[in-house]
Amino acid sequence: MKYKGIITPMLTPFDRKGKISKELTEKLLEKITKNRVHGLFPLGSTGLFPFLSIKERKTYLEIVNNGKGKLPVFAGIGSSSTEESVELAKHATDIGADVLVLMPPYYITPGQEEIKSHFAKVLSATDSNLFIYNIPQLAGTWISYETMLYLKEEYNQIKGVKESSGDMRRFQKVMTLSDRDFTILQGQDDLIYMSLMIGADGGICGTTNIMDETVRIYKNIEDNRLELARKSQLDVVNPLMESLNSITFPSGYYHAMYESMDVKGGYRTPMIEPPESKKKEISSAVRKALEKAKKYK
Amino acid sequence: MKYKGIITPMLTPFDRKGKISKELTEKLLEKITKNRVHGLFPLGSTGLFPFLSIKERKTYLEIVNNGKGKLPVFAGIGSSSTEESVELAKHATDIGADVLVLMPPYYITPGQEEIKSHFAKVLSATDSNLFIYNIPQLAGTWISYETMLYLKEEYNQIKGVKESSGDMRRFQKVMTLSDRDFTILQGQDDLIYMSLMIGADGGICGTTNIMDETVRIYKNIEDNRLELARKSQLDVVNPLMESLNSITFPSGYYHAMYESMDVKGGYRTPMIEPPESKKKEISSAVRKALEKAKKYK
Amino acid sequence: MKYKGIITPMLTPFDRKGKISKELTEKLLEKITKNRVHGLFPLGSTGLFPFLSIKERKTYLEIVNNGKGKLPVFAGIGSSSTEESVELAKHATDIGADVLVLMPPYYITPGQEEIKSHFAKVLSATDSNLFIYNIPQLAGTWISYETMLYLKEEYNQIKGVKESSGDMRRFQKVMTLSDRDFTILQGQDDLIYMSLMIGADGGICGTTNIMDETVRIYKNIEDNRLELARKSQLDVVNPLMESLNSITFPSGYYHAMYESMDVKGGYRTPMIEPPESKKKEISSAVRKALEKAKKYK
Amino acid sequence: MKYKGIITPMLTPFDRKGKISKELTEKLLEKITKNRVHGLFPLGSTGLFPFLSIKERKTYLEIVNNGKGKLPVFAGIGSSSTEESVELAKHATDIGADVLVLMPPYYITPGQEEIKSHFAKVLSATDSNLFIYNIPQLAGTWISYETMLYLKEEYNQIKGVKESSGDMRRFQKVMTLSDRDFTILQGQDDLIYMSLMIGADGGICGTTNIMDETVRIYKNIEDNRLELARKSQLDVVNPLMESLNSITFPSGYYHAMYESMDVKGGYRTPMIEPPESKKKEISSAVRKALEKAKKYK
Repeated sequence: MKYKGIITPMLTPFDRKGKISKELTEKLLEKITKNRVHGLFPLGSTGLFPFLSIKERKTYLEIVNNGKGKLPVFAGIGSSSTEESVELAKHATDIGADVLVLMPPYYITPGQEEIKSHFAKVLSATDSNLFIYNIPQLAGTWISYETMLYLKEEYNQIKGVKESSGDMRRFQKVMTLSDRDFTILQGQDDLIYMSLMIGADGGICGTTNIMDETVRIYKNIEDNRLELARKSQLDVVNPLMESLNSITFPSGYYHAMYESMDVKGGYRTPMIEPPESKKKEISSAVRKALEKAKKYK
Repeated sequence: MKYKGIITPMLTPFDRKGKISKELTEKLLEKITKNRVHGLFPLGSTGLFPFLSIKERKTYLEIVNNGKGKLPVFAGIGSSSTEESVELAKHATDIGADVLVLMPPYYITPGQEEIKSHFAKVLSATDSNLFIYNIPQLAGTWISYETMLYLKEEYNQIKGVKESSGDMRRFQKVMTLSDRDFTILQGQDDLIYMSLMIGADGGICGTTNIMDETVRIYKNIEDNRLELARKSQLDVVNPLMESLNSITFPSGYYHAMYESMDVKGGYRTPMIEPPESKKKEISSAVRKALEKAKKYK
Repeated sequence: MKYKGIITPMLTPFDRKGKISKELTEKLLEKITKNRVHGLFPLGSTGLFPFLSIKERKTYLEIVNNGKGKLPVFAGIGSSSTEESVELAKHATDIGADVLVLMPPYYITPGQEEIKSHFAKVLSATDSNLFIYNIPQLAGTWISYETMLYLKEEYNQIKGVKESSGDMRRFQKVMTLSDRDFTILQGQDDLIYMSLMIGADGGICGTTNIMDETVRIYKNIEDNRLELARKSQLDVVNPLMESLNSITFPSGYYHAMYESMDVKGGYRTPMIEPPESKKKEISSAVRKALEKAKKYK
Repeated sequence: MKYKGIITPMLTPFDRKGKISKELTEKLLEKITKNRVHGLFPLGSTGLFPFLSIKERKTYLEIVNNGKGKLPVFAGIGSSSTEESVELAKHATDIGADVLVLMPPYYITPGQEEIKSHFAKVLSATDSNLFIYNIPQLAGTWISYETMLYLKEEYNQIKGVKESSGDMRRFQKVMTLSDRDFTILQGQDDLIYMSLMIGADGGICGTTNIMDETVRIYKNIEDNRLELARKSQLDVVNPLMESLNSITFPSGYYHAMYESMDVKGGYRTPMIEPPESKKKEISSAVRKALEKAKKYK
């Protein structure tokens, strides 16, 4: 079985004091669902899981899992501590999250053997399905192709990869692992069109917290409207992402998400609220993206 | 006031099941104290703080603080979450740890403004003294010179820097912050001799968990026996470190530490126990270092 | 006007003593022409221009230009010295090469202003058309997007870009420079399919010295046989390239080229001949690629 | 035999049209000699050898060799082409240059075997002594420690290393090659004090084209005035270097050199003349360095 389509790496909406907001999270769920995405990925990097306590992570996952409707939930269970990932894996399994997503432990840079051991420990604590998450620019280490191959062959629970390195040469290599029971997802919005063209099953796209353009790219490719898809990528998604990333990640996404829902949300430390001038720039980039998107319907 | 000398970034001794061992920790404290170091730094990178729960970190700090004798305790309070660092700062202050040591939040790579905000939040929760900890190869981000200067000037509590980047050009730049109330410590054992020669106040040296050679380097420089100090660095410390680091950090240190105390300790996942062949290599390197050390007494 | 299609960055065939072989070069030209490429690019990186004297470069260019038939010649005029690039530009223009290809000066790493000055000096010495060549992994410096935009707007002679960084995020940004008089070419064979799908005009593909698969990818995309093109990329070109690059670049290409023409050629120092075991591996990879290619006809 | 002391990597003075100026070169030789350096190194990176034709390189070397007085000349014979380095080696030997200095070929990144072959070819063409030159930030490749050890053991002509990587951990490793017939020189002015303290034989210091402070550091260490040497490093040399390098290397050095000789010199393309504002900044930094230098006499 494959997991197909565009999945939202959910932002974690905060209130003005920096606490997780159940109300805003439900509003975000509603919005994302309207954007016709194919799945939800709470507690990934964009969701700022390293800023949250274990308790908060569990609470947030429960809110999302309760509000998921028909969408599968990919629960981020990453941690620098194997024990913590084990605990999160058990909890996510208990409450009925559909898939777990695990990255290597970070800060203390592991070798490939340590990565295998980390995955083994987590997998032995759950019978859930699990995706491998490669994001070296944050985790500080690459999961090698050989390690991915090993994990795929060793564990039936492992069903796919979220490849977020941004390196398309690497992405093509990872694509050779693709089979009818193993899913490859692109983790970078600006590379989604070419990844789908090369055979990826879908993507985990942060901009779906704000607008649905990557979903359209996916559907347009399904329907063989390649030129429309290509233009969405180059003219809509890429300039939007460039603007969102023009300030320390991911505060630009948070501003745009709050604004798109017309709410006042907060910024959990150490993330800081963008200055007004930067907010205006980003708001303007979002408006432009929405306008240009109309052209490619 | 300056903090002078060699400080031990304490390993966290585990039992065979990977739990913190109070017994082995007390044994290690005894050993380190005999090595005549000038301070203790529990819960740094070598101490594997990211593998421990908050509760474990507090427990471990209490064990060390109770057993510190006359040595000052530098308590590592690093976290990817500001709230967690605040909680750890309060606890360390409450139990009477002497100094706090704080790095930037990690995984979600902060900008310099986010780093300043992280430090501000932690400092507002304690009146303890604090050291800035720069370790970009693990934290994933540099604390810029300008940020260090800003923090030093803004907060009286900030008393120094642990500079562990390993870049001596950078180290010299950081040295320009040195004054009679601001301490600069080298965080890399193999660079301690040249750092002291350039004016550093001391070092935080992982090999003091195993043997006392960096303490001797420090004392030999104090007593103007430079040639002895230089040879200790090149012939004893550097080959030892090369061997300890010939396997994924820091498992080599753990093996050597357990062996030097003649105990059987454990390895907390995701750290894995070195294979026998590698253990033998490291044991042999330690023996050689001890033998050569006799020559430079 | 656009330059469309697949261009061969020609290897420079040497005799057994390491001298340029006119005979083998003509044989290579014949072979490449049969491969139905759309242009010739002598004296690029694969052509080892930095190993040749100015005199040799001129001689080689003349051989290629004389044997080009109906194919346009893109003459590599790169050098660490502006004066040398000027001299090569004049010569290439004089003998009737169709387009010049210029990279930044290298070794002494230039800033963007130095790059602009280098291009200005060369352009003032010729009225030929010119392509910008970005290859930071060898040149040691990036030509920034802003510099490319500046050069494009400032000089009518500049007709396109060879973007060889291998970074597809960057490639998409460069694609925004594309217009009906400005050509964008991908310089990496393993990224040619996705680059064409994103709108690139063609590619400069080293494997066309050995086999014609990237030409087929190009034609299959033109004819909307995307699935065939995609499979050629993943199953034929990528494994071949991986094998060719499994030894210090570009000696693997030279071995495969000589073998595919069934001749004994040489290796100009500092390039060294691959060991026999490596030659066998590469020969085997070429055979496999040729066999698999039959499936995607 | 050891080569001891501070050697000047000579700038190549140009006239206003960018041609090598014999007159200014002789003036520079006079100045450097007054600065009491222990050797001359023409045609290194600071000397911009990659911007010069072979003929110019020979001419320049002859000027320097004729004007060397009692100083040994270390002739830079680096090239991206082995044949060119061979030709330069022969010429330098013929005219009586004292030592050759060779880096790996660049642009086409060699492996370690290619580096060994490059050195072998050059050494077989001369009986001169030769230094290995490691400068990965420009050459694009590291000469590994193992390759250095191999070259040292294989060839009696190889008499030392110019280690310019700026990595002091690496420098210490290279120091283990030091013996009474093998010289280790530091190639970075700002690391000269600590390198000498760790046992280096001397340095190749670009600021000696402008002022003599690194020579004083060397002599003060010889005379055991360590505190003076240390302060020269931190207060005089380092801020000067920071200013000289605040613009694309090495135009800041050229401006300061011309000004210190009170002449009007030129800038060979692709190097461009610094803007007036930057010149003023650099001039001011030089004046400050000269003033502070008086304090540490």
